[in-house]
Amino acid sequence: MFKRLSRPARICLFCLSTLAASVASAADTPYPDAAASDPAKMGWMVGAPPPPDRIIRFADGSYFKFPAMRWSVSNFRQLMPTTNVSRGLGAPVPLARALRTDIDQLTFIPTGSTEPMTWEQSLAANYTDGIVVLHRGKVVYERYFGVLNPEGEHAAMSVTKSVVGTMGAMLVADGTLDANKKIVDYVPELANSAFATATLRQVLDMTTALKFSEDYADPKAEVWQHAMAGNPLPKPAGYTGPQTYMEYLQTVQPLGEHGKAFGYKTVNSDVLGWVIARVTGRNVAQLLSEKIWQRLGAEQDAYFTVDSIGTPFAGGGFNAGLRDMARFGELMRNDGQYLGQQIVPKAVVDDIRAGGDKAAFAKAGYDQLKGGSYRNMWWVTHNADGAYMARGVYGQRIYIDPKAEMVIVRFASNPIASNSANDPVTIPAFEALAKQLIAHP
Amino acid sequence: MFKRLSRPARICLFCLSTLAASVASAADTPYPDAAASDPAKMGWMVGAPPPPDRIIRFADGSYFKFPAMRWSVSNFRQLMPTTNVSRGLGAPVPLARALRTDIDQLTFIPTGSTEPMTWEQSLAANYTDGIVVLHRGKVVYERYFGVLNPEGEHAAMSVTKSVVGTMGAMLVADGTLDANKKIVDYVPELANSAFATATLRQVLDMTTALKFSEDYADPKAEVWQHAMAGNPLPKPAGYTGPQTYMEYLQTVQPLGEHGKAFGYKTVNSDVLGWVIARVTGRNVAQLLSEKIWQRLGAEQDAYFTVDSIGTPFAGGGFNAGLRDMARFGELMRNDGQYLGQQIVPKAVVDDIRAGGDKAAFAKAGYDQLKGGSYRNMWWVTHNADGAYMARGVYGQRIYIDPKAEMVIVRFASNPIASNSANDPVTIPAFEALAKQLIAHP
Repeated sequence: MFKRLSRPARICLFCLSTLAASVASAADTPYPDAAASDPAKMGWMVGAPPPPDRIIRFADGSYFKFPAMRWSVSNFRQLMPTTNVSRGLGAPVPLARALRTDIDQLTFIPTGSTEPMTWEQSLAANYTDGIVVLHRGKVVYERYFGVLNPEGEHAAMSVTKSVVGTMGAMLVADGTLDANKKIVDYVPELANSAFATATLRQVLDMTTALKFSEDYADPKAEVWQHAMAGNPLPKPAGYTGPQTYMEYLQTVQPLGEHGKAFGYKTVNSDVLGWVIARVTGRNVAQLLSEKIWQRLGAEQDAYFTVDSIGTPFAGGGFNAGLRDMARFGELMRNDGQYLGQQIVPKAVVDDIRAGGDKAAFAKAGYDQLKGGSYRNMWWVTHNADGAYMARGVYGQRIYIDPKAEMVIVRFASNPIASNSANDPVTIPAFEALAKQLIAHP
Repeated sequence: MFKRLSRPARICLFCLSTLAASVASAADTPYPDAAASDPAKMGWMVGAPPPPDRIIRFADGSYFKFPAMRWSVSNFRQLMPTTNVSRGLGAPVPLARALRTDIDQLTFIPTGSTEPMTWEQSLAANYTDGIVVLHRGKVVYERYFGVLNPEGEHAAMSVTKSVVGTMGAMLVADGTLDANKKIVDYVPELANSAFATATLRQVLDMTTALKFSEDYADPKAEVWQHAMAGNPLPKPAGYTGPQTYMEYLQTVQPLGEHGKAFGYKTVNSDVLGWVIARVTGRNVAQLLSEKIWQRLGAEQDAYFTVDSIGTPFAGGGFNAGLRDMARFGELMRNDGQYLGQQIVPKAVVDDIRAGGDKAAFAKAGYDQLKGGSYRNMWWVTHNADGAYMARGVYGQRIYIDPKAEMVIVRFASNPIASNSANDPVTIPAFEALAKQLIAHP
């Protein structure tokens, strides 16, 4: 019943990029809706043992088939080796709360539709697992669905890239890294790859020109090699390809000229993670704990999935509690300050908000993000509010609207990977809420 | 160089029982000492990538070869799938501190020796990774070595059994379980196994009579089948045996008559975990969080390793922060009370302290624990102080001395699995400290 799209979904743990090519919305698909696919109601992994048709395993790929995937995204630790992002041992600093009752009934028109939809309806339309809205730093809205709860951690998917990109930009800001240097200057092992001639700036903004297809429909697409290399399980008999993320990155070849066009490729984030680890002596999980997570008053440790030699998946392996993601978003909205500390330099936040090369971005053809750009692994809308985003497949999102003084963090398990599937609902909904908060603060 | 004992060590993740047969001490072996095998100095998994001879993997068994094992026991999450034991989201309650300076130079005579040893020397002799001593609930001593620190989690090995046994006894105390009932009454799937005719009490006290050898030197020992069944990795081609812990438990056959002799067999704890999960609808990780870990003011989430269908390894898969283990030990010392709550019924603690069947225990021939007994998966010394213990291979220990009002928790990575290797140092050291605290409170 769900077979048609099961293959792309199955592998997306390892690629987790936005499938710009896909424009289908969930409504056009054979997938059951959010209520029918509710992972709590389906009873995944409940029972001792669970019924055979409710067991989710990593090795057989069942973990990423819809609707089982709706359980998996809240339970990667049960499926794979992971590495911790410690919050430290101090007391969490609770988020202030000022819950509003005017949000659920807010209405908007989804892109391409004529029918209004309420905010509340949008949650199910997007297979939301959890959503928190902060206004001026206070929680004004918070909901959990399915198997996610405030004590849970959820896959951030490619939101990971923005977290890693922020750390990269911080290291540029403090002089540890030079954005104009070539990648090969930091990681000589990449001398025979496309990254040899790319600058760190091009990697941060994904204007590298790489022969790296994330077209899951093509069995020869490079994304499959990347996935196999990063898979922490033993490789199949006879496999002779790269064994790890780092080995794979050395094989990526150029296609065109760096610096001309935006090209959203997960491997850029993996390369950035490698540069960070090489220069700081700490991998992205360790550095994230030290530089940010321990300073947020976070409620929970977060974690990264790892490959067979313990390399955190910088392109998409981050998992965290929803409220802690909200703390991170608020830190960004607040010019890098949080709990009275300047955690991210203001210059880094300003640089992200100012955005990247719009002309380069336009060449990539994101219809729903026209006029946008990409900077330090953040998506910048350049809309009237100056909103910018972290985006991950299946609907993961951090949405920061400076003018509305609003941060939205959402975890979701949409059956369709590409954000183009949920953007027609997501973008108007988030913009409508921003308007409401501006009009009625 | 370390090959001689590498095979037993390699598999002990999955069995983790005390090898009563082994009486060798580390001093008799070819192993490097604690300083020479310091996992921080060895640089395991440091570098991007780490040097080939410093990479530790799960699949190839390198993770449990000494001295790599000294890193692995603090990093199981990086090696395997795990399931969380949430501490909740509240503020940790710091342990009160009253550090003493009279402990390091305390002397004692190791069993079988004539040379005195200082407490400080005992730490290295036992390959200690971390140790906390509480006196009257306050931290009087705390040390970390190698790659463990207060923010880390360490494998508890068979200390897990005492944690699970405590939960089992709690469920007996509140009437959820009946200790006189047969295991098959709770888990009908065990009808054709040795457990069919065993009572829950016999399982809790390990007086079952099972054809289950934990003799690692014997390739046909049942412990290997148990290990293979519980291994979360895909099974080798052609493997037709049990796929999970639960499937394996159904194959365990009787050997002798239940109730006559103590027989320390890991599978009893796995069966108890299954009974708990079946009756409560929550696995041991979920129940531990709910019943205990969320009520301790714990600093960190803990976790269990899991098999391929997510079953927590109740016989030895628990990992936690050292201070949180100390909180758990103090809870037991304090008649089940902690932070003003009665978390474990006093009757359960009294029952453990009173101990099990001494005659049955004597038949098992633990030379260094003469006069002892085993109750609800705790080791009871019946010494003058009424001390009782949780014990795990490679030196894991919770030692509770009611008379001295002392709790010692220790994580270690002794090259020799059996506690009989470290008991000659451990037991006199702990008893000497108890005397000191009684004499000079």
